[in-house]
Amino acid sequence: MPKVFVVGFGPGDREHMTEQAVKAMEAADVLCGFNTYLDLLRPLFPDKEVYGSPMTKELDRCRGALETAGNGKTVALLCSGDPGVYGMAGPLLELADEYPEVEVEVVPGVTAALSGAALLGAPLMNDFCVISLSDLLTPWEEIENRLRCAALGGFALCLYNPGSRRRKDRLQRACGVLLEVLPPEAVCGWVRNAGREGEAHDVLSLEELRDFSADMFTTVFVGIPSTRLIRGRMVTPRGYERKR
Amino acid sequence: MPKVFVVGFGPGDREHMTEQAVKAMEAADVLCGFNTYLDLLRPLFPDKEVYGSPMTKELDRCRGALETAGNGKTVALLCSGDPGVYGMAGPLLELADEYPEVEVEVVPGVTAALSGAALLGAPLMNDFCVISLSDLLTPWEEIENRLRCAALGGFALCLYNPGSRRRKDRLQRACGVLLEVLPPEAVCGWVRNAGREGEAHDVLSLEELRDFSADMFTTVFVGIPSTRLIRGRMVTPRGYERKR
Repeated sequence: MPKVFVVGFGPGDREHMTEQAVKAMEAADVLCGFNTYLDLLRPLFPDKEVYGSPMTKELDRCRGALETAGNGKTVALLCSGDPGVYGMAGPLLELADEYPEVEVEVVPGVTAALSGAALLGAPLMNDFCVISLSDLLTPWEEIENRLRCAALGGFALCLYNPGSRRRKDRLQRACGVLLEVLPPEAVCGWVRNAGREGEAHDVLSLEELRDFSADMFTTVFVGIPSTRLIRGRMVTPRGYERKR
Repeated sequence: MPKVFVVGFGPGDREHMTEQAVKAMEAADVLCGFNTYLDLLRPLFPDKEVYGSPMTKELDRCRGALETAGNGKTVALLCSGDPGVYGMAGPLLELADEYPEVEVEVVPGVTAALSGAALLGAPLMNDFCVISLSDLLTPWEEIENRLRCAALGGFALCLYNPGSRRRKDRLQRACGVLLEVLPPEAVCGWVRNAGREGEAHDVLSLEELRDFSADMFTTVFVGIPSTRLIRGRMVTPRGYERKR
């Protein structure tokens, strides 16, 4: 049966890929994806046919993958992190309804919430929310409502897409909403280019985060009031200490 | 420097492990963990020294790992899924404050939210919350508040620890809270033993989920009102369709 693997390759380095992801890419005749991802992965699979497309052409990329599979080739559609977290698994499965002869397999990967958290310490050890600050596909009012609900629920937060060249004030506005509920000294952190060249991370307060300049390769973490700094790491207690 | 790797090995099969996790386990002199995890991993590392402990002794296990490292051995403390999502990264880093000579490295892994989502389709494609229904470490009222805030925020949900032998009604009560906000026909799904023997999964409505009997090896997914079934898969739209 013609097949598209939609593959999460993690942050980008070989170390963070699962064996399943590597096998799916090896099994594929064609690697398909955002040009930047193909540049990252081409050195690992130099002999593969590739089909690249620019960043915003998500549906074209999914359709291209399904058409290519329909023509008898096995395709790996590449996503950084996990394909099911702001990746291509959803749009691909939606479009796959028009290609009943093509099988789709979702291959999970280490998303930025997990790879970033590992670098900072353990910021998401208790219940948490993952929110994208991109308002390209979601109205900003809806994003603000989610931030408010998350803060009121006492969730730790992982924020994707905190900034871009086009929109620089998203993170500032998000922190403004969170500061309605959370204290200014709440422990936060950011990670840039996890698992890639130029990897960097640091911790800071929510008040400082408001003035932090995040780019599109940054992931942001916001603690709950009990989140602490321990030996420079951001640690959200799970509650085990109550059992001591 | 003496070192503890706190390693997320994913759902349990070799396929879902990252290269980084395998390397950390290979580098370790001692594998440390909940007995069930050691049983899963021992066949892959038959020659390693192991140090097992029963399920609820999390702090003892962390302390054992730190003491063993302090005595000059490299330790891998094993967690299923990801160590930073209801795993051992947090308690280990908290205790590590008492062992300044021991280095701690967090090795991320594919948590059940990701491996389970991949089997069901793409249930977490939009902003989502991860909530544990275990009230061993969190008062039930706090869990109910989080469920309510998550539903009001329009988050998709992944629920860990939906049931156990001791407590059978957690999921039923959680669904009751969610049904105050979400429609009874909201698309939901469950995954049992992802990546292990006896793997199973299915989709159902929120109303049906209320009467579903979940065990401690089950992860539950709750969609948002726009979540749909496509070719039997649970798919939460991200919003790309608005760009067509």
